[in-house]
Amino acid sequence: MPAHQPSESFILVASGSDFPLDNLPYGVFSTSANPTRRIGVAIGDQVLDLSALTDKFLNHELFIKNNKNVFAQSTLNDFMSLGRDAWATARQTLTRILSATEPDLRDDESLRGRAFVKQSDATMHLPCHIGDYTDFYSSREHATNVGTMFRGADNALPPNWLHLPIGYHGRASSIVVSGTDIRRPVGQTRPDESKPPVYGPCKALDFELEMAFFVGPGNPLGQPIPIEKAHEHIFGMVLMNDWSARDIQKWEYQPLGPFLGKSFATTISPWIVTMDALAPFLVDNVPQSPAVLPYLQHTDRFSYDIRLRVDLQGTDLFGQRPVSVSNFKYLYWTMKQQLAHHTSNGCNLRPGDLLGSGTISGPAKSERGSLLELSWGSKEPMDLGNGVTRTFLRDGDTVTLNGVCDNGSIRLGFGPCTGKVLPALEI
Amino acid sequence: MPAHQPSESFILVASGSDFPLDNLPYGVFSTSANPTRRIGVAIGDQVLDLSALTDKFLNHELFIKNNKNVFAQSTLNDFMSLGRDAWATARQTLTRILSATEPDLRDDESLRGRAFVKQSDATMHLPCHIGDYTDFYSSREHATNVGTMFRGADNALPPNWLHLPIGYHGRASSIVVSGTDIRRPVGQTRPDESKPPVYGPCKALDFELEMAFFVGPGNPLGQPIPIEKAHEHIFGMVLMNDWSARDIQKWEYQPLGPFLGKSFATTISPWIVTMDALAPFLVDNVPQSPAVLPYLQHTDRFSYDIRLRVDLQGTDLFGQRPVSVSNFKYLYWTMKQQLAHHTSNGCNLRPGDLLGSGTISGPAKSERGSLLELSWGSKEPMDLGNGVTRTFLRDGDTVTLNGVCDNGSIRLGFGPCTGKVLPALEI
Ligand SMILES: [Ca+2]
Ligand SMILES: [Ca+2]
Ligand SMILES: [Mg+2]
Ligand SMILES: [Mg+2]
Ligand code: NI
Repeated sequence: MPAHQPSESFILVASGSDFPLDNLPYGVFSTSANPTRRIGVAIGDQVLDLSALTDKFLNHELFIKNNKNVFAQSTLNDFMSLGRDAWATARQTLTRILSATEPDLRDDESLRGRAFVKQSDATMHLPCHIGDYTDFYSSREHATNVGTMFRGADNALPPNWLHLPIGYHGRASSIVVSGTDIRRPVGQTRPDESKPPVYGPCKALDFELEMAFFVGPGNPLGQPIPIEKAHEHIFGMVLMNDWSARDIQKWEYQPLGPFLGKSFATTISPWIVTMDALAPFLVDNVPQSPAVLPYLQHTDRFSYDIRLRVDLQGTDLFGQRPVSVSNFKYLYWTMKQQLAHHTSNGCNLRPGDLLGSGTISGPAKSERGSLLELSWGSKEPMDLGNGVTRTFLRDGDTVTLNGVCDNGSIRLGFGPCTGKVLPALEI
Repeated sequence: MPAHQPSESFILVASGSDFPLDNLPYGVFSTSANPTRRIGVAIGDQVLDLSALTDKFLNHELFIKNNKNVFAQSTLNDFMSLGRDAWATARQTLTRILSATEPDLRDDESLRGRAFVKQSDATMHLPCHIGDYTDFYSSREHATNVGTMFRGADNALPPNWLHLPIGYHGRASSIVVSGTDIRRPVGQTRPDESKPPVYGPCKALDFELEMAFFVGPGNPLGQPIPIEKAHEHIFGMVLMNDWSARDIQKWEYQPLGPFLGKSFATTISPWIVTMDALAPFLVDNVPQSPAVLPYLQHTDRFSYDIRLRVDLQGTDLFGQRPVSVSNFKYLYWTMKQQLAHHTSNGCNLRPGDLLGSGTISGPAKSERGSLLELSWGSKEPMDLGNGVTRTFLRDGDTVTLNGVCDNGSIRLGFGPCTGKVLPALEI
């Protein structure tokens, strides 16, 4: 393959920016000057306001739904619902009009004045209405780590784990966009099994390094999406921090699964990186053994090389400390398998539904995706230098996830997914 | 107390109707003549179209939200969000204008012609947008039955069960209104633990007799609703059938809870009976021992005497057979406790969120709320007469839930919650 010549935009893109012309992620933003929520794409340190382009550039009939232009909406749900032809057409158009050699937008000073907003002047919002949110458990290393701590190394993986992508329904209402402060939850725990449970602030607050994808067109109730067509329903990806209260979770989760230990907050990054932008970073899937059932089999590659990092900042730390590095490619189950499994019983997915990967841990100790694993259930506190350690999160801690793809010729990123822990409310 | 004189409406209400003037449940309907979805209340065999009353009767300023009348909407979410003052005012107004002695609506022939629709001419829809759906597990008898089958009588109740109302997040997208056919799900099961799992139509399809309540105003993220205020956020109740694929559920549910074994369909009755209508049927709460933690304690009554029945119709049966009778009053945990617990970690509830009770079983064998319990895990097939038996549901079976309150002077009901099982799709 010839070396890729990075496409250039007439918008300056600093070296190392997450948002070159090759990326063009979608988000929803507003400004203090115009509080209406509208759809934009990130380019360099700018947001291109797509609502300003619906007359001149984004007027293709593919973009009309219910007699309205999907880019004139306050959420991305309608655009997500249109499917891959519309997604590709929009990407082509945006790539063209943003490129350095194309005069249509470049030389339209009036439109440029209206259509570009500095990212530093934009407030980001959730990119769409999330009807349902599902979280999977698809990292073999994470499931093995957690299972070893709770059940011992011999029974680490549950018997079903290698046969299906385990998942559960999470709370859609408490999904927040990066930058939202996270209130330490209060709840019922049982720290001493010889005594009754107690009620108070969580003492084992954790992050989970995850990614998640948004559903495109989806399916009617009762009509599974076969795995051969699963990719047609995957719009794009974000970073996700599935904040977890381990002490609440431990006491509540049997027999019906995580509930209040998770439902207090889930943070996602605001910019949705599309599968078209991620295509250059496809890598081989993780081999699966035993062979999975036919409804979960696919031979095309659907794993992605996305380098992930978690940084921690705290009142007892000077500056940020990296606490974990991992990679999306470690996941055992692919997004295609997750989506096909999810709909196999006829469950309907709707445009804008969010499906999380589960905590993404890698084989190395430094690649564990949660403090539970990094501190091995508090038995091995993390050393952050200068005598500072962590088992779980302290009030005032800020957790920031980052994700970058870089194949040597193209480099793009997701922008940060961050949140700061506020003290619990008094009870 | 003096005997209650049943209020009378100028609309004929047949003896035994679920919808006397004392009820006035809310729903969303359309007609073939007017396919616009609109809010109505059931009275006798009629629907009173509230969208026709916003000028003359339902014009109180309390009913305005975002400059729009909440009764001119296609869902009940905005009305639910207003809280108890608005709910009481609407009920007073509707009770007055429907009463036999009040001429305002009775004698306005033109308005009557526009405002009443026969229930037999109305198509019912989901009453609101359900942002999140939670299912609890609050029947001690049900939890004990299931626990005994799976873990033996000595370990029937999980250790946390008496300390908190166990719940989990269900699938909001697949909640359907009564009358919707239910497609038998396909999925992965492991009938023989010595062999690999298999894929095919569910062989253990079940119903779950439940009720559910809709959330009123709700709470912002991070701000729990204390139990003293929980009742202010409970709008009203419906019947619910939480269809369950026991074989899929059994193989998938550990460690993260039910997922595809439930997410293929959940049926609710279309008419929401308000807490004001249910007030005459308040009964003492079930005593709780050990004492619950203070955040779950309340001394006011919040249990309700609602008589429940499940009927089964099938291609091998002549007519309907009752298969279970139970009562909402058996539930160990109250709706106030469920709501306070759900928000205790700061999780935000939104207007229109749905919280299910869990399967409502009673102490008698005939009061078990699922076929799993009624046939004791297939070990004791139900005898339906004429040599017909059931362990789990057959294709063509119709399951109908009914709920009635009757204190000797007031009688009201919920209307049916019904669904028919269609054969699985070919795979
Ligand atoms: Ca997770
Ligand atoms: Ca249930
Ligand atoms: Mg979470
Ligand atoms: Mg269900
Ligand atoms: Ni929603």
